Amino acid sequence: MKLKLTTPLIIVNFKTYLEATGRKAVELAKQAEKVSKEIGITIAVAPQFTDISSVAKAVEIPVFAQHMDPIKPGSYTGHVLAESIKEAGAVGTLINHSERRLKLADIDAVIELTREQELISCVCVNNPSVSAAAAALKPDIVSIEPPELIGTGIAVSRVQPEVVTTTVKLVRNINSDVTILCGAGISHGEDVATAIRLGTQGVLVASAIVKAKDPYSVLREFADAA
Amino acid sequence: MKLKLTTPLIIVNFKTYLEATGRKAVELAKQAEKVSKEIGITIAVAPQFTDISSVAKAVEIPVFAQHMDPIKPGSYTGHVLAESIKEAGAVGTLINHSERRLKLADIDAVIELTREQELISCVCVNNPSVSAAAAALKPDIVSIEPPELIGTGIAVSRVQPEVVTTTVKLVRNINSDVTILCGAGISHGEDVATAIRLGTQGVLVASAIVKAKDPYSVLREFADAA
Amino acid sequence: MKLKLTTPLIIVNFKTYLEATGRKAVELAKQAEKVSKEIGITIAVAPQFTDISSVAKAVEIPVFAQHMDPIKPGSYTGHVLAESIKEAGAVGTLINHSERRLKLADIDAVIELTREQELISCVCVNNPSVSAAAAALKPDIVSIEPPELIGTGIAVSRVQPEVVTTTVKLVRNINSDVTILCGAGISHGEDVATAIRLGTQGVLVASAIVKAKDPYSVLREFADAA
Amino acid sequence: MKLKLTTPLIIVNFKTYLEATGRKAVELAKQAEKVSKEIGITIAVAPQFTDISSVAKAVEIPVFAQHMDPIKPGSYTGHVLAESIKEAGAVGTLINHSERRLKLADIDAVIELTREQELISCVCVNNPSVSAAAAALKPDIVSIEPPELIGTGIAVSRVQPEVVTTTVKLVRNINSDVTILCGAGISHGEDVATAIRLGTQGVLVASAIVKAKDPYSVLREFADAA
Repeated sequence: MKLKLTTPLIIVNFKTYLEATGRKAVELAKQAEKVSKEIGITIAVAPQFTDISSVAKAVEIPVFAQHMDPIKPGSYTGHVLAESIKEAGAVGTLINHSERRLKLADIDAVIELTREQELISCVCVNNPSVSAAAAALKPDIVSIEPPELIGTGIAVSRVQPEVVTTTVKLVRNINSDVTILCGAGISHGEDVATAIRLGTQGVLVASAIVKAKDPYSVLREFADAA
Repeated sequence: MKLKLTTPLIIVNFKTYLEATGRKAVELAKQAEKVSKEIGITIAVAPQFTDISSVAKAVEIPVFAQHMDPIKPGSYTGHVLAESIKEAGAVGTLINHSERRLKLADIDAVIELTREQELISCVCVNNPSVSAAAAALKPDIVSIEPPELIGTGIAVSRVQPEVVTTTVKLVRNINSDVTILCGAGISHGEDVATAIRLGTQGVLVASAIVKAKDPYSVLREFADAA
Repeated sequence: MKLKLTTPLIIVNFKTYLEATGRKAVELAKQAEKVSKEIGITIAVAPQFTDISSVAKAVEIPVFAQHMDPIKPGSYTGHVLAESIKEAGAVGTLINHSERRLKLADIDAVIELTREQELISCVCVNNPSVSAAAAALKPDIVSIEPPELIGTGIAVSRVQPEVVTTTVKLVRNINSDVTILCGAGISHGEDVATAIRLGTQGVLVASAIVKAKDPYSVLREFADAA
Repeated sequence: MKLKLTTPLIIVNFKTYLEATGRKAVELAKQAEKVSKEIGITIAVAPQFTDISSVAKAVEIPVFAQHMDPIKPGSYTGHVLAESIKEAGAVGTLINHSERRLKLADIDAVIELTREQELISCVCVNNPSVSAAAAALKPDIVSIEPPELIGTGIAVSRVQPEVVTTTVKLVRNINSDVTILCGAGISHGEDVATAIRLGTQGVLVASAIVKAKDPYSVLREFADAA
């Protein structure tokens, strides 16, 4: 059965940072699990494909893939199969991250595959109008991330609050169920609090945690503010 | 230090077949290892990204990734990093398989990354002229696979011997070191023997092994003929 | 100022058929213009990029590009620029045809560019849920075309009427202004009449016209039925 | 019959610059033709797809497409067909420009199509090893352009002469017939002269001409130096 994630929700994207690769992916996931248990808030982690199984074995928090291909089992060398990330221990997947954009028809096909496999779908979008389009496809989560702010430390919720509120409005017009996250530049607890005050149910974060000297402390600050 | 693979060489591509996913990937790799030890021939396996670490822990034969992206560590959500497949236990990677074609500049960049990470590079190509182009990039292995024969059970070495011999000739004009494999439709020991007689050093196979009722027996037949 | 197309509307996609290339593109466009004038119905044509200027000079009916890239003027060798198709005489463009699928963010960007350049945007989609997503981006036209029927002569309006009606319903829930077309397999006047009866404002057609021995007669039949 | 281009050769890539779109494309081509006739050197121009026919009608110098797709006539909406650029008046095409990179197998397929259609193939490459790979595919022209210098005004022949000479050496080891050009940052007659002294047969240029206040003068300087 498909996992239900409680909100507020924080998803930590490990990207292909060396600080979150292999054994370090497992260590970072354990820090996230520690904060999750201490604060009682859902924190999910999205490690690289190669690390899903070891991370999923090491922690009890939800593990996401960073991407999934619109394929069924078969002759698809080098692709990422729903059944494979699931057997490795993932409970969901990011889809259409700004660093791994998909064709519209493929986003729809991947969401359909996640339904069949009872995986949680989190579609990333770049602006409010695209967030509305994504919401029309009925994924579990839509995450708005203006690409120009990703990795900058300048939080979308702080400098582009109208992007977040417009997203919430457009998405809610179309879809009352979908969980809405925002991301890009989230660096402080206050950025998380603002994101939630603007109408989201949480944040999608990466470098602020992965590149931190003390990821535990930053995550703890984020979770406290959520 | 980079592994040296002895020839003849058989690489088994697990693709995204359910018969070679998760626990079944480990089981299949163990069958390959058994044949490899019995016959004393190198058999490498190429499981999905999510299965590399568990397969590499379970067997001592070489493990390849099915694909790798032309990226350095960093902000590349959903991509496949050289460092990650290496830490997971891979010793090499397929590149440019017909089901995962790459841009020319990216094939060159991936080969360069495999050099830096001391991984074995196996570039797949679709015809003799492209095999010459690939050989000019100095990978460790070039594998010729006419796409129209892949998965058909009609062996390239049997029905298109001139494709194999032309490939060997064109590649050798440019590169005397590269290992040459062929694939597509290889189904019987005789197909493997013919491939080697035509000037290759081995074969790249997939469905004939993965989809077999008894993969051990088929691999054993292939290995005996090599 | 942006052209307003009256409905019912027939768009003829010339694809890269030799029967609609170069001089033959101009001839075919003239046949379409003749039917359009005789019946008093809007018929637009979408020739290849290389033929837009000569077709637009030869006829007074609306000319569309078959695709446009999400770019501004600049260093984009081999791309298709809004300003260029407009100066060549196009009044609009197909976007995301099943033979030229785009990333979701790029569809949004192209629609925005068509607004800036006062070009008509016609987004092609493969199924009802994707049609809803496209409608959320507020293009001028959405055209539903199940890819498996394209070029078959088996009309979507005949064999998948529920695909058309579901599309109309989902699109109208989100967007009351957008023109809705359907396509794929449209071969007879009756297919066009059915499409309109199911709630669309017209059809997007290709091979039935371009490959016809007498394109004028077929188009005339379509226009009579619209 | 396929045109033979004499060397030295200058190809001017119009990209999607507004200064070289529509009527301005024709004007710029006429300037190039004027210089070509005055100096007696081959200057080819590569306008956008939409401008090929009007440019080819207006001038007698060779016209190239900026890109071509690996397709035969048929159901390929939004693609660029060999037959179409040829009927529009092009005598050749750029292939794999750094702003329009292709998969290796597609470069090979496009070169084969240019042979069938008697079009001149000019494959762009980013470094010496890729130039060797391209040369193995036997196109008519290989043009080396380090992407990081494109549009900078810092000429590859001036600041990276070893890139040019290594390219010439590696290409000549594999292919004695292919014409070798270089590009990226070419801004002065001296850059052109140096390019030729380093072993190339000409240059591929863009912004230095297209963005010039007086394109005629700059082209004249280039042609004088060639």
